[in-house]
Amino acid sequence: MRVRVLGVGMGPQHITPEVADALRSCDYVLAAEKREDDGLLSVRRAIAAEHRLEVVAVPDPERDRTDRADYATAVQDWHEARVAAYERVLRERGGTAAFLVWGDPSLYDSTIRVVDRLAERMPVEYDVLPGISAPQLLAARHRIVLHPVGQPVHITTGRRLREDLAAGQTNLCVMLTGTLDLAGLDDCSIWWGANLGTDSEELVAGRVADVLPSLEAARERAKTAAGWVMDVYLLRAREAQP
Amino acid sequence: MRVRVLGVGMGPQHITPEVADALRSCDYVLAAEKREDDGLLSVRRAIAAEHRLEVVAVPDPERDRTDRADYATAVQDWHEARVAAYERVLRERGGTAAFLVWGDPSLYDSTIRVVDRLAERMPVEYDVLPGISAPQLLAARHRIVLHPVGQPVHITTGRRLREDLAAGQTNLCVMLTGTLDLAGLDDCSIWWGANLGTDSEELVAGRVADVLPSLEAARERAKTAAGWVMDVYLLRAREAQP
Repeated sequence: MRVRVLGVGMGPQHITPEVADALRSCDYVLAAEKREDDGLLSVRRAIAAEHRLEVVAVPDPERDRTDRADYATAVQDWHEARVAAYERVLRERGGTAAFLVWGDPSLYDSTIRVVDRLAERMPVEYDVLPGISAPQLLAARHRIVLHPVGQPVHITTGRRLREDLAAGQTNLCVMLTGTLDLAGLDDCSIWWGANLGTDSEELVAGRVADVLPSLEAARERAKTAAGWVMDVYLLRAREAQP
Repeated sequence: MRVRVLGVGMGPQHITPEVADALRSCDYVLAAEKREDDGLLSVRRAIAAEHRLEVVAVPDPERDRTDRADYATAVQDWHEARVAAYERVLRERGGTAAFLVWGDPSLYDSTIRVVDRLAERMPVEYDVLPGISAPQLLAARHRIVLHPVGQPVHITTGRRLREDLAAGQTNLCVMLTGTLDLAGLDDCSIWWGANLGTDSEELVAGRVADVLPSLEAARERAKTAAGWVMDVYLLRAREAQP
């Protein structure tokens, strides 16, 4: 049995020739079917249809999002349940299965970890191909480089933002934002984007204090238009300019 | 006049459909011709030839790499000289020019800054499209995610590595390595790659103390095979495992 983990960027416009080749070698696409439609299953269906591949939708287990649950444990349990669900399909169908990963498999995506576990439970060969990630598309849309000349960029999560700022980070790319909390960051510069690469894409950039109202309005517009919102931003403290 | 800044990843296998579309709208490709052949001009020539575009090679100005030169100033002077060279070509030829950026324009690449300066000196519209970056291909080849679950990844340069480690970073992706200095990092895990996506690609992973000899040998092989070496690695302190 063979599994291919394929980064598909933000949709068909980002399918690289090597990913297109890989899709031609696959027998079907495995896709999580989430309780709330986040629009991603339909992107996967569109890509699969273009390559004449069947989509096998696997209901996604519930993740414990209560406060009492330790984050790492909750994520781990959720992964285990997903692994079991995929294992059943793979054993039943065999052949070569594709996972289409929104963005790139190397950033805040669990597919590689899920397939690692699968490979411990059953004989499965797998490979990974990269795709365009949201921070890259954000930078391209704003026509910026993600870091000041010769400096680092710290890619982190909304959940970690305050801790990373407190530790002295001055140039951060924030993913998995959940809600958007920019309180007290008035003097930072922000380059923000939501639903990048889709019809409901929104972009806002400027000093946080100046653009926050328009940013919040844009976020609502994206959510209303698509029924979901996924945003990402670069945040840079004044001392790190430009 | 119009300029398109196009990320081409590690070569033709990474040209996204949107970049291929953009190339069809261009009249020629502008490319820096470096004194030392780093193999990149030939990749650009191959991509341009596939899209039946002429390559206008612009001799790259010398960069001051002496120790006395302040890094930021040296880079700035070098950018200014490049801008002047490109301006001459654009004024002479007009039309739509493409810059093909190795990897992605948002990480340790000067093209966007150069084009920003160009736009200050002459009327030029421009846009940017993303490409697959070296850290993504590194992660894909090693089949890893760039960060522990929910944790950050700090993307930095070889020049900054010691400073960033001293500041407490435990999970770093290092680009622009120049020479490779891993002294004292014996207990870290490393996922390393050189000349990724090319015929001379090399990969090594493991505990630094265990793999350093084989890594150095692989780096030499890549350099001998290609005539140049570009490497990138993920370095993770033991406390940040997995």
